[in-house]
Amino acid sequence: MTERVKQILSWYNSASAGVRTNLARIMNHGKLGGTGKMVILPVDQGFEHGPARSFAPNPPAYSPLYHFQLAIEAGCNAYAAPLGFLEAGAADYAGDIPLILKLNNHDLLLEEKDPVSAVTGSVGDALELGCVGVGFTIYPGSAFRREMYEELRAIAEDAKAHGLCVVVWSYPRGSGLSKAGETALDVCAYAAQIAAQLGAHIVKVKLPTAHLEQPEAKKVYEQTHIPLEPLSERVRHVVQSCFDGRRIVIFSGGAKEDDATLLDEVRAIRQGGGFGSIIGRNSFQRPRAEALELLRQVMAIYGS
Amino acid sequence: MTERVKQILSWYNSASAGVRTNLARIMNHGKLGGTGKMVILPVDQGFEHGPARSFAPNPPAYSPLYHFQLAIEAGCNAYAAPLGFLEAGAADYAGDIPLILKLNNHDLLLEEKDPVSAVTGSVGDALELGCVGVGFTIYPGSAFRREMYEELRAIAEDAKAHGLCVVVWSYPRGSGLSKAGETALDVCAYAAQIAAQLGAHIVKVKLPTAHLEQPEAKKVYEQTHIPLEPLSERVRHVVQSCFDGRRIVIFSGGAKEDDATLLDEVRAIRQGGGFGSIIGRNSFQRPRAEALELLRQVMAIYGS
Amino acid sequence: MTERVKQILSWYNSASAGVRTNLARIMNHGKLGGTGKMVILPVDQGFEHGPARSFAPNPPAYSPLYHFQLAIEAGCNAYAAPLGFLEAGAADYAGDIPLILKLNNHDLLLEEKDPVSAVTGSVGDALELGCVGVGFTIYPGSAFRREMYEELRAIAEDAKAHGLCVVVWSYPRGSGLSKAGETALDVCAYAAQIAAQLGAHIVKVKLPTAHLEQPEAKKVYEQTHIPLEPLSERVRHVVQSCFDGRRIVIFSGGAKEDDATLLDEVRAIRQGGGFGSIIGRNSFQRPRAEALELLRQVMAIYGS
Amino acid sequence: MTERVKQILSWYNSASAGVRTNLARIMNHGKLGGTGKMVILPVDQGFEHGPARSFAPNPPAYSPLYHFQLAIEAGCNAYAAPLGFLEAGAADYAGDIPLILKLNNHDLLLEEKDPVSAVTGSVGDALELGCVGVGFTIYPGSAFRREMYEELRAIAEDAKAHGLCVVVWSYPRGSGLSKAGETALDVCAYAAQIAAQLGAHIVKVKLPTAHLEQPEAKKVYEQTHIPLEPLSERVRHVVQSCFDGRRIVIFSGGAKEDDATLLDEVRAIRQGGGFGSIIGRNSFQRPRAEALELLRQVMAIYGS
Amino acid sequence: MTERVKQILSWYNSASAGVRTNLARIMNHGKLGGTGKMVILPVDQGFEHGPARSFAPNPPAYSPLYHFQLAIEAGCNAYAAPLGFLEAGAADYAGDIPLILKLNNHDLLLEEKDPVSAVTGSVGDALELGCVGVGFTIYPGSAFRREMYEELRAIAEDAKAHGLCVVVWSYPRGSGLSKAGETALDVCAYAAQIAAQLGAHIVKVKLPTAHLEQPEAKKVYEQTHIPLEPLSERVRHVVQSCFDGRRIVIFSGGAKEDDATLLDEVRAIRQGGGFGSIIGRNSFQRPRAEALELLRQVMAIYGS
Repeated sequence: MTERVKQILSWYNSASAGVRTNLARIMNHGKLGGTGKMVILPVDQGFEHGPARSFAPNPPAYSPLYHFQLAIEAGCNAYAAPLGFLEAGAADYAGDIPLILKLNNHDLLLEEKDPVSAVTGSVGDALELGCVGVGFTIYPGSAFRREMYEELRAIAEDAKAHGLCVVVWSYPRGSGLSKAGETALDVCAYAAQIAAQLGAHIVKVKLPTAHLEQPEAKKVYEQTHIPLEPLSERVRHVVQSCFDGRRIVIFSGGAKEDDATLLDEVRAIRQGGGFGSIIGRNSFQRPRAEALELLRQVMAIYGS
Repeated sequence: MTERVKQILSWYNSASAGVRTNLARIMNHGKLGGTGKMVILPVDQGFEHGPARSFAPNPPAYSPLYHFQLAIEAGCNAYAAPLGFLEAGAADYAGDIPLILKLNNHDLLLEEKDPVSAVTGSVGDALELGCVGVGFTIYPGSAFRREMYEELRAIAEDAKAHGLCVVVWSYPRGSGLSKAGETALDVCAYAAQIAAQLGAHIVKVKLPTAHLEQPEAKKVYEQTHIPLEPLSERVRHVVQSCFDGRRIVIFSGGAKEDDATLLDEVRAIRQGGGFGSIIGRNSFQRPRAEALELLRQVMAIYGS
Repeated sequence: MTERVKQILSWYNSASAGVRTNLARIMNHGKLGGTGKMVILPVDQGFEHGPARSFAPNPPAYSPLYHFQLAIEAGCNAYAAPLGFLEAGAADYAGDIPLILKLNNHDLLLEEKDPVSAVTGSVGDALELGCVGVGFTIYPGSAFRREMYEELRAIAEDAKAHGLCVVVWSYPRGSGLSKAGETALDVCAYAAQIAAQLGAHIVKVKLPTAHLEQPEAKKVYEQTHIPLEPLSERVRHVVQSCFDGRRIVIFSGGAKEDDATLLDEVRAIRQGGGFGSIIGRNSFQRPRAEALELLRQVMAIYGS
Repeated sequence: MTERVKQILSWYNSASAGVRTNLARIMNHGKLGGTGKMVILPVDQGFEHGPARSFAPNPPAYSPLYHFQLAIEAGCNAYAAPLGFLEAGAADYAGDIPLILKLNNHDLLLEEKDPVSAVTGSVGDALELGCVGVGFTIYPGSAFRREMYEELRAIAEDAKAHGLCVVVWSYPRGSGLSKAGETALDVCAYAAQIAAQLGAHIVKVKLPTAHLEQPEAKKVYEQTHIPLEPLSERVRHVVQSCFDGRRIVIFSGGAKEDDATLLDEVRAIRQGGGFGSIIGRNSFQRPRAEALELLRQVMAIYGS
Repeated sequence: MTERVKQILSWYNSASAGVRTNLARIMNHGKLGGTGKMVILPVDQGFEHGPARSFAPNPPAYSPLYHFQLAIEAGCNAYAAPLGFLEAGAADYAGDIPLILKLNNHDLLLEEKDPVSAVTGSVGDALELGCVGVGFTIYPGSAFRREMYEELRAIAEDAKAHGLCVVVWSYPRGSGLSKAGETALDVCAYAAQIAAQLGAHIVKVKLPTAHLEQPEAKKVYEQTHIPLEPLSERVRHVVQSCFDGRRIVIFSGGAKEDDATLLDEVRAIRQGGGFGSIIGRNSFQRPRAEALELLRQVMAIYGS
């Protein structure tokens, strides 16, 4: 075990040996193994956006096996997906890559002002599938956030009791926030804090913009001169908001974007002390060879 | 066991031996046994539409025994019905045909914009009745879809833990959709994907029309040239949307229609790679001899 | 055991020996013992309508003991009441008459468009009181029917696991129905079907009128020439709708009415193949001797 | 054991020996021990109305010990209070007086049209504190009555399974009733009946006025000449409505009133066959010596 | 053990030895150990107000370790925080200071008229982290208070069964109250009473103003001449409202204020018989040395 991995694990020393073992499995796997950085492949868009919108741009991705292979070949640290996708490949690729079972999901067949995901899997499912952890999405800002926090609380207690680590997607949305507010710096930092306080081992947030949403917060940001630019400083603030960096926080790139932008963002994450990226649509919606090349470049930045 | 059945079972290799045994029982039973194709007789219309609307056109069908006999004599792969109907005949026909207990149902004594079925049976009931699996309906597009997904999640986990397979009727309905949208190609494919991600072993959807409901999806269908015609291509798209064909997806014919149309639809399902049909009203609402003849023709197409 | 009782029990051959034993206890008790017909005394009006409206017309009926004695002396097949009434006499009359614990109840201190009963007892209570079965009311047509169906499902599973039989009062009411629709033939038949599909061993409905409520159903009644007159034909249709007569279905007389009408109704029930009556207010709201005489006449018709 | 206590216990002969033991403990304790009459001190006003409104008129009553001492010294049959008050004195006065843990409570910091109490204690708490029974308030007439009835059902089953007796405060309130209707004779009698049907061993209602609230009930009261005057006749009607007197029913005096009125009411309760009083504010809101004297006079009437 | 600690513990003599042990641990720890007074450091503002608003004024406070160190070095009696913050340091500082796990929390990403906190931890979590007790916030005056009281009830029973003590933050808020009413004397006293009746071992309220909110209460305050000034008298009234001083009641200072005011308040709390303070933002939002000095002065007042 590298010193860096040991150091990171030391922040989780109230957790059981089982949980720390699974965190170590993620950190020690793939091309970034041992660096303390991570790139995770998440594929829940089939549920979240529908199959054609997700997979028609690169039809081999309709197959659940495709994503296992992509994550393995690219050397990702872990692969995260809902129940059906993992059931369809977990036995075929048993032991080849750390798996994270995404335990709640949301579809777009009905528009809602205050979204809430449905619980679609269990800790028992994760254990049966040989996963190292479970994933759960919360929407701070939604009128249903209480339900989601309480579901997460119960799932996290159950997961920890069974040695699984807990990865929380913390995506501010809902009637409490403007559209710009969903990625505002103050809101992203707050969302990261909430996830960490709820006991997440790994926190995943979106990259924050320089917008400030809440008047009370804005006042403090100005008074205390928290820098809004460049992006790396915003990343640094989110990392600080996540227990002063003592919780792993990773970032998602969102919709498919041009590669130069994405790589610049990765550089900013690295520079700001972020622990890595979750890269979904930007990898599986392009031909496999291109995806492998992009992920190679991303990992090269994190590993440098 | 035929090579085709072995191949299909290989897609479910994360499932327990018990679940795979019960999937095999369905695939190896009846006239289509061993072909990997299936025709299932479902009779929940007494609950869903009322007894007279369901059975008065062919009065012997008021008797629960009638449907067991029909499914057995026609050589169907399985018979699916709610608790009362199965309780009324399961002991008489013990072992004669694989049974699927339909675990939720919805009546029409009150019209609702956002339908939600009541849970009307349990995995324990299914085990007591000697069933091979359980059936569950979800209505993607309904404001209550979250409740249904979560009920299904719990039932599916329970069923799998007891070696039962899980059949999901995924019928888009509710305030999120137009009437035409309920059978739109993008929506049917999405509904199939959701069922598969929720862990269904067998997915049942309606035959899709060439309508596209969701603007964001429509854009992708056009950009990626997903063919909307003929019906067999739409079937192929739904099958692809169901884990690239690695989950059994079958189709329902809906209301009673003329036989030529129905048989054309069956040919399209077969041509598009679909795994079979659920045929209810088109079989039990006509005299028994006619029903047997129709089912014979349907199976002849699938078995050819 | 008579051949008729054996025949009826054969329809329940998926049920446990315990359930069939308790069904046999009801069918073999009292003056109609062995005939396959039954008259049950139900007394939940104290809860449903209030004590004075229920018992002031015949004040001895305020006492819970009165009803045990009436049911025993009249030779009823069973006595059904809520928890309090059974607790107040079950030990005094232990073994003298089969008891059915009514597990949900509704009061009239608040008017509601969509009624829903409160669960007021449990299967455990029924077992402690030595009952042969449990009773449960559902209101098809109410916006809360889903809650009631699901409560019934859970209670029925529990009852069956403990060898108790399940009696379902299926009374259409609620915003889905007009007042006339509550006793419409199509609606009564539908309500009986729902109860049977939910796993009821004994179904209790109101006597249907010749009204047809639902347009879609009306079309079928007309096309298939289901007779609306006389009453005995309507009874026959309800019996047919209850699994072609393979479930015991009994009828209630409703409010206190003149005896000639009531006896005519009983004759129609018998002629139409109904299995018996539940007679509450028409018996306990008149002096005991008169009640005994009326019940004697009712049973004479069923036993003839 | 006196004959009267034996007689009363005989009405509860479906209850376990444990429950009857605890009923006997209440009936055999204090100055009225053995008479079959009872006076209970209830002190939940701190929660229900706030501390100053409850205790400032007699400041020693702020102390939880005060009420134990008052109940013991006055020779009450039992003392009833919420969790906090009992926890604060149960060990100090262990075995000195039968205790009833009040299991739900309601505060006045928010006005509601349809009140519902919060469950604030458990049967387990009652057992740990050495109580003889549990108390529970229902508000018939409230839109939330179903929730309360169902909570009571579950608690009563649990209590009985552990040998505790069940005391139900049945206070009509809510949008189904006018203000005058809350104490109307028909409504009080109905409320008593509901509590008894829900399985209460001891029913507590308010003294009824001569008002009749419900038109359908009013018709019956007039037709059957139920006397509305004097108060003792109204008490007699409520007692009759409580299983013809086969359930213990006691009455509360409500707000602090002048002593002559209160003693007249006690005489009417006694004359009408009531089993006793619950006297809270009229005792603990006056100096201790005066309270003891008043309770002495009340008990003298019941004991005469 | 000092006589004062023994005396206080004697008020809790219905509690288990385990609970009393943990109460003793709090009372015997730190600079105020043995005095019966206590100062607790609570840090849940990261969740309640967001990370920047909470920690940017003193950036070292972003780290969860900072607060453990501050509480230990200052000689506080206990440190209270949500799950994430305790998990991040409990193993590092095992045994160094009594810990209280805050079991529910509320964020400000959505404004609500009737607030309700989400349950964010469990008694099991508290036991795993070596805590001496659990903390829970209720909002009397909120339309959701019933949910909160019932959650607290269940948690308190569970905590007590495992020997943990229960600390209740009772903060009146919601549509039942005006803004001024949230800290009104009558409302604060009522809130303290409710917490005590719900079985809290330690009650935490805000310092009350001289405002009286509820008309019915106001009448009583005037009639019984409850003094509204000075602050120490208001503290005395709250202490009296908390079981005549037989429950530990402590006070919070609220937002950051100038030190002279804060120390004056502490003097008033001490003079009025309060048991101590919870001091959060006033300590961790200033540089560590200044915080230690302020806490030293606060404890000097309590210890004098």
